[in-house]
Amino acid sequence: MQSEPKTMVDIPAILSPADIESWDREVDVAVVGQGVAGTCAALEAHRAGVDVLIIERASGGGGASGMSSGIFYLGGGTPVQQAAGYPDSADEMANFLMASCDPLDPNATRNFCNDSAAHFDWLEQQGVPFERSYFSGKAVYLLTSECLMWTGNEKTWPYNLAARPAPRGHKVAGTGENAGAEGMKPLLQRCVDEAIPAIYDSAVIALVQDSDGRIVGVRVKQTDGILHIKARNGVIIACGSHNLASDLLQEHLPLLSETSEPLAIPSNDGAGVRLGMSAGASTVAMDGVIPTASIYPPAQLIKGIIVNANGERFVAEDVYHGRLANFVMEQPGQTAYLIVDNDVFAYPEIPSAKHTLVDGWETIAEMEAGLNLPAGALVATMDEYNADAAAGLDRRFHKQADWLKPLDNGPYAAFDISFNKSTYLFITLGGIKTDTYGRALNLYAQPVPGLYVVGASAAHIPRTGKAYASGLSLGPGSYFGRRAGRHAAGADWG
Amino acid sequence: MQSEPKTMVDIPAILSPADIESWDREVDVAVVGQGVAGTCAALEAHRAGVDVLIIERASGGGGASGMSSGIFYLGGGTPVQQAAGYPDSADEMANFLMASCDPLDPNATRNFCNDSAAHFDWLEQQGVPFERSYFSGKAVYLLTSECLMWTGNEKTWPYNLAARPAPRGHKVAGTGENAGAEGMKPLLQRCVDEAIPAIYDSAVIALVQDSDGRIVGVRVKQTDGILHIKARNGVIIACGSHNLASDLLQEHLPLLSETSEPLAIPSNDGAGVRLGMSAGASTVAMDGVIPTASIYPPAQLIKGIIVNANGERFVAEDVYHGRLANFVMEQPGQTAYLIVDNDVFAYPEIPSAKHTLVDGWETIAEMEAGLNLPAGALVATMDEYNADAAAGLDRRFHKQADWLKPLDNGPYAAFDISFNKSTYLFITLGGIKTDTYGRALNLYAQPVPGLYVVGASAAHIPRTGKAYASGLSLGPGSYFGRRAGRHAAGADWG
Repeated sequence: MQSEPKTMVDIPAILSPADIESWDREVDVAVVGQGVAGTCAALEAHRAGVDVLIIERASGGGGASGMSSGIFYLGGGTPVQQAAGYPDSADEMANFLMASCDPLDPNATRNFCNDSAAHFDWLEQQGVPFERSYFSGKAVYLLTSECLMWTGNEKTWPYNLAARPAPRGHKVAGTGENAGAEGMKPLLQRCVDEAIPAIYDSAVIALVQDSDGRIVGVRVKQTDGILHIKARNGVIIACGSHNLASDLLQEHLPLLSETSEPLAIPSNDGAGVRLGMSAGASTVAMDGVIPTASIYPPAQLIKGIIVNANGERFVAEDVYHGRLANFVMEQPGQTAYLIVDNDVFAYPEIPSAKHTLVDGWETIAEMEAGLNLPAGALVATMDEYNADAAAGLDRRFHKQADWLKPLDNGPYAAFDISFNKSTYLFITLGGIKTDTYGRALNLYAQPVPGLYVVGASAAHIPRTGKAYASGLSLGPGSYFGRRAGRHAAGADWG
Repeated sequence: MQSEPKTMVDIPAILSPADIESWDREVDVAVVGQGVAGTCAALEAHRAGVDVLIIERASGGGGASGMSSGIFYLGGGTPVQQAAGYPDSADEMANFLMASCDPLDPNATRNFCNDSAAHFDWLEQQGVPFERSYFSGKAVYLLTSECLMWTGNEKTWPYNLAARPAPRGHKVAGTGENAGAEGMKPLLQRCVDEAIPAIYDSAVIALVQDSDGRIVGVRVKQTDGILHIKARNGVIIACGSHNLASDLLQEHLPLLSETSEPLAIPSNDGAGVRLGMSAGASTVAMDGVIPTASIYPPAQLIKGIIVNANGERFVAEDVYHGRLANFVMEQPGQTAYLIVDNDVFAYPEIPSAKHTLVDGWETIAEMEAGLNLPAGALVATMDEYNADAAAGLDRRFHKQADWLKPLDNGPYAAFDISFNKSTYLFITLGGIKTDTYGRALNLYAQPVPGLYVVGASAAHIPRTGKAYASGLSLGPGSYFGRRAGRHAAGADWG
């Protein structure tokens, strides 16, 4: 008898107050990381009147948020939604997230929705710029400055039945390449203007936990030595994802491939998850990931079909790119082909995806042979799809009518969009289990006293990429960051 | 730096043909386990004309299927559904399972639905008795012999939007205590009548894999020694769940409590999962479980509300008992209370659940104090719920109107239904990853040649108890058992 082989995951040792000779500094609230979640937490705690210290590993604030495309998932009737003529309500937003994410903490999700429009206003009040404009197309990264866009599965079955679809991706004014930075600049400036103390080039490498289990401080590593900082009220961990943590990825995400590329900054090594675990906090959804190598733009490619190595479709092709990619990842051999006819043919426009044209064929039967699919499989798939499409429906996967047309005008072409051949960018979705106050929870969902985890160090609302909508990092990250800041300062919410 | 502590899981060593001095017996297909999945597999393989051997650990067939309450989840317009006046179709059944389970292999699920009514007919042809009758109430174990009953979340939001609700639990004629046995008897008799060879008191303790990765035989332990059996076409593992596998439960289901009780027979020690893993097959949903300690019958209790230790509701109270229990398991401290007013008051009727009456109070404010809930929390929850219920809706959790009434006629009572205090029975849902032919799949969803895994040794269609419907063990177990039998015999399906 042998044992199941296991990857070893590094977790820092927890310290006790007896390990600390003397505290180098004492504050009320220590905020670890100055991305969007940490910045919002620091602003709220500071404004509630307590002593805050931001501790950031990099030489300046911004984090992965500042490198992102700056999309906040918000709704419930924001001014942008109103200007674009898309009615929305907290109930509709909650219905969508409840149906698509089946969230672990439905009440935290509901609070996020109830407060979402007000949270948008707050972001604007801090100076985060949002246009009153709408982008109607299908894009992954928007290279123009429009604000509102569809960034999830709102219009796809069965979620379109559970909630009236509304676009909820709110992009900071700026192009997809610098919108995240444009969003972080005013937030960071507020920290400066309000003189919130911050130390940079400073990595928190351990937590200090007293005999009652309360987190009372941190150990900080700087170039020239070690600091110990006491945090009378608590520590807010907001130091990002584990997108670069090879041990955690191997343990929990073995389906990532050699061609998968993390969307990450160098500090996304899982420090936040590890610090949380060191204090007895529990993790959630560590096998969750949103991968993406979108087939669109151009949108017309959505009218193609996607099949696996068995020649079978496996997902509605009009779902959000992260949902589609998650299904591709799970197919036999991680193989998938995008198949189009002459009417639909176009090259996928996201060059980083590296989708390649396999070949063109006069008939589906020839393509089936050319792709080495099982005899008759692709022909049967196409026959069923075309018959349904001609009738304006897709009984098997419920692709919406807008994207349905019989693929019957040859020649036909196939793009290889296999998970292990194309370049799928990814973001991990797992992290520390938390509640609506951003408090870190143990296995039994009870708070670890004095410890908060927000942003990408905490588990996202969606636990798989199948349920992810772009903006569900910055949106909840900033919102629960604020709530953690208020709570750690001893202030009520709302 | 320390490492994450890990439970060690026992997996048998894989054997190579060189380890086998001589084969004691040679067959075409070896079927490991004679529950419903293995029996169906053996019948189909035998009838396709190949040499089959059933290898069963117990002294006779039946397995956990024979100890079960005998519910098969089937639909698509079975004769029982027709007789009861419930129209159903393969499309509606697939829509429900797609929306509620978001299955890993949507095409396997679709095949199960497409063939479901025909599979019902096949079961009847083997002699499995089903009445043409319908039970309209809310029950967990039916102590009468009616066939058709609601056994899942078909009528609850949002799944009721994705598919026209239909009852699909088909219970074998017999009471809930012996229906499983009544279902297995004719199937086992068929094996005898058709002279399918079987050996009992025989445990498969290892698989034999050749240098190409193909499974070519098994090692069998009997009281008086060891046998090696060569399986020319392949081995079908159908030896049940890991409900009693303490190592696997500790590793994957740490939320199970001291008061959780497995629904299991002694051989449910995870042998099937372990054998599959030994050959390189991958596991799915090992953190999936359906726990149950239903609050109904009587159905009127569904009109109560259920709150956690924060005084918040967290689930629609009219969901299926397994979904409700899964949410209870995840609440802070695993604590939950069922709260009723004087109109709704009744004692839960399932004695094994051990739900206890905490106390009665004249007002909600007094109950809040009596249950040690946060000040104001229960009053706020009740105010919101009662206002919505008076308007015939439940905006937060979408409990259906049939079960809504303002809880405003004191006195009020609370039952403690906490996961770690009541007795929640459970069934594990995880297992080996398989395809529509019952073939065992490796991490990349590619078949391990010669190896099939069906029944509770394979992962269920629903990956969490939140999505489970009773009958999704015997229904797919028997269906994919048949498919594996045909495939291993080299015969087409359908």
